[in-house]
Order: sequence, then structure tokens, then C-alpha cells
Amino acid sequence: MPRISSFFSASLDGFFADEKDDVSWTHDSSGDPEWSAFVSGNASGDGQLLMGRKTYEMMRSYWPTPAAKAAMPVVAEGMNRMPKHVASRTLTEATWNNTHLISGDLLAAVRRLKAAPGPDIATLGSGSIVSQLAQAGLVDEFQVVTIPILLGNGRHMFGDIPAPLRLRTVRSRAFTNGHVVTWYAPA
Amino acid sequence: MPRISSFFSASLDGFFADEKDDVSWTHDSSGDPEWSAFVSGNASGDGQLLMGRKTYEMMRSYWPTPAAKAAMPVVAEGMNRMPKHVASRTLTEATWNNTHLISGDLLAAVRRLKAAPGPDIATLGSGSIVSQLAQAGLVDEFQVVTIPILLGNGRHMFGDIPAPLRLRTVRSRAFTNGHVVTWYAPA
Repeated sequence: MPRISSFFSASLDGFFADEKDDVSWTHDSSGDPEWSAFVSGNASGDGQLLMGRKTYEMMRSYWPTPAAKAAMPVVAEGMNRMPKHVASRTLTEATWNNTHLISGDLLAAVRRLKAAPGPDIATLGSGSIVSQLAQAGLVDEFQVVTIPILLGNGRHMFGDIPAPLRLRTVRSRAFTNGHVVTWYAPA
Repeated sequence: MPRISSFFSASLDGFFADEKDDVSWTHDSSGDPEWSAFVSGNASGDGQLLMGRKTYEMMRSYWPTPAAKAAMPVVAEGMNRMPKHVASRTLTEATWNNTHLISGDLLAAVRRLKAAPGPDIATLGSGSIVSQLAQAGLVDEFQVVTIPILLGNGRHMFGDIPAPLRLRTVRSRAFTNGHVVTWYAPA
């Protein structure tokens, strides 16, 4: 049965987007080959993606483009090919290749996905979705990329969590480009 | 000449205190001996402390007490002995042992401290103070302890920074108790 992993990037002071919803500061411009291999390895697996509408629209506007295919061919191929699930009460159709729309009860839909045979599921960003899944105990792993920048203000991933949630640190790895990746599991 | 290091603990989602100013979730209750040795090593050195009024009042109400001396004798001895500087426009005296009050221009006072011979200076918490010092290029190192908990909401360290500030990751270390310590320097 599929496990759910939540992937997100955040500034050192805990924001996943700045006050203007900009996430360009999360991108690696160093050309660190170790980091590139890590990102490609994450995206080239045989998985499924789960995301909210905002993340979906941001991804859909980028990954199918020639620019994305030129810049990160392995990641773009994986993103476009993998089964994708977008949770939204406002979308009426999902046109990106191999995307399924979840318009009803999120937790029920995700419990069905986890109960059926299939590859592991990754959530990308999508704070509101991940907050609901984490509180319901449906997230098996969190993978946090900490970017060495202080933003001061911006948007939080977990503002919708109704009560603090303790996690267990699994491991941590610092890359040459300064990104620190830490894996957490439910406590 | 003294270097300035900024030490702070934060939740995985970037808060140094919860919405009620509670920081009890930052305390280690696991008895991890490696972590205890690390904290004692940090506090037992021959340094100076710099903090804002809130951090000062919280520290002063704890470290001189018999409870603190019983729970963490090495840290308590160091905290009470070391030279301390508290920046405040409202305090008229600082009664904790070996404390100096900075009531005028913070940056000028800190530049004087850095220009004089003396042991290295550590700031503890004190987001407003550290934001001002970081923006002025006066912080030589940041040491961030990430606690594996999602709070959802709370107080930020760097809300007073006027513009994003890039840092350089120096190293990262995960402890058995789940705390991850990452060191940063100016970019």
C-alpha cells in the first residue's frame, strides 16, 4: 500500500513563500551536482503526486514547457508522466497529463488512495492539504529542505493545524549548495 | 576582538515561541547525554551574553534559582557567572549578577563591544535585537536548533528584518533526541 511523503522547502525562518507568493529563492543556482542528483532521484521514481490547487497550477504552468524540459529534463519528464492528484473545490477539470481531480472529501479520498495498491505518494508544498493529512495521521514522512535565507515574513505551511504536532527526526543531510534536508516521521 | 554568535531554537515550521510566548516545547526531556554535553559545552565557555529585555527577564527569573542549579548545574553556573548585556529602553537597572544595561544606541554599543578585547559574544533568542544586528552585518554566526514539532502559528525571530538576508550553511548535526543544529555564517 502506498506511503505518503510530504516534501517542502522553507526559509531558515520557516516560510515556504515570501509575502508576494514568490518561491524563486528556493531554487538552486549553484549547479551543485550532488544536489541535482538528489532532486532528480526524488522525481524520477515510480510515484504519485498529491497537491492542492495553487501548487498544481504553479507546477502545470511550468513542467510541460520547453523551458522546463531544457533546464531539468529528468525532473520534467517525471513530473509530466507520474499520476497526479489535485484536491480542489473550485477546479472543474484537470488538464495536465495523467491528473485526477479530488473535489469531494479530501481525507476519505486519500484513505482510499492509501488502501489501494499503487506507488508511494508525494505531496509537494500544499500546506493546507498537508496540515489536514498530518493531523489525521495520514502522512508517513516529511522531507524538509531548509534554504539558508532569512525572509522575515511570508507564508507558513501549517497554519491550518489545530494543535501542535510532535514529529520524530529520522536523519539530516547538508548539501554543498547550503540546502539542509531533514527527514521526519510521526512521533 | 569578540565574534558574535546568535543562538536560537525554533519549531520545524519556524517559530521560536508559540502564540502564548511558551517555549517549554524547546526543552529536551529525553535525557540524551550527547545533547546535554553539547548544551553544557556551549554554556560553560568563557563568553559574554547579549539579549533583549524579554529574554533577559525570562533568563533572570530562572537561572539563579535553586531549581535551575539542581536541574542543569553547569549551565546555571555559567549563565550566572558570565558577563551579560541587556538592551532595553525601559529597564532602569539590571540586577542579575554581572549584567550591563544598554539603554542607548544598540548598534553603536555593539560595535564598541566588538572593537574591544574580550571573549566572544552570544545572543540568546532576542529576535528584534538579532534582526537589527544581522542586517547591520554584526552577526558572525547563527546557530539554529530545530525542534521536531509543527506549531502552526507563533512568534518569528526575524520579523524586523527589512529585506531578505542570504546566509551560508556551515554545517549541520542531528542529535539522538531529534534536535537538529545548523550553523550559518554571513553569505
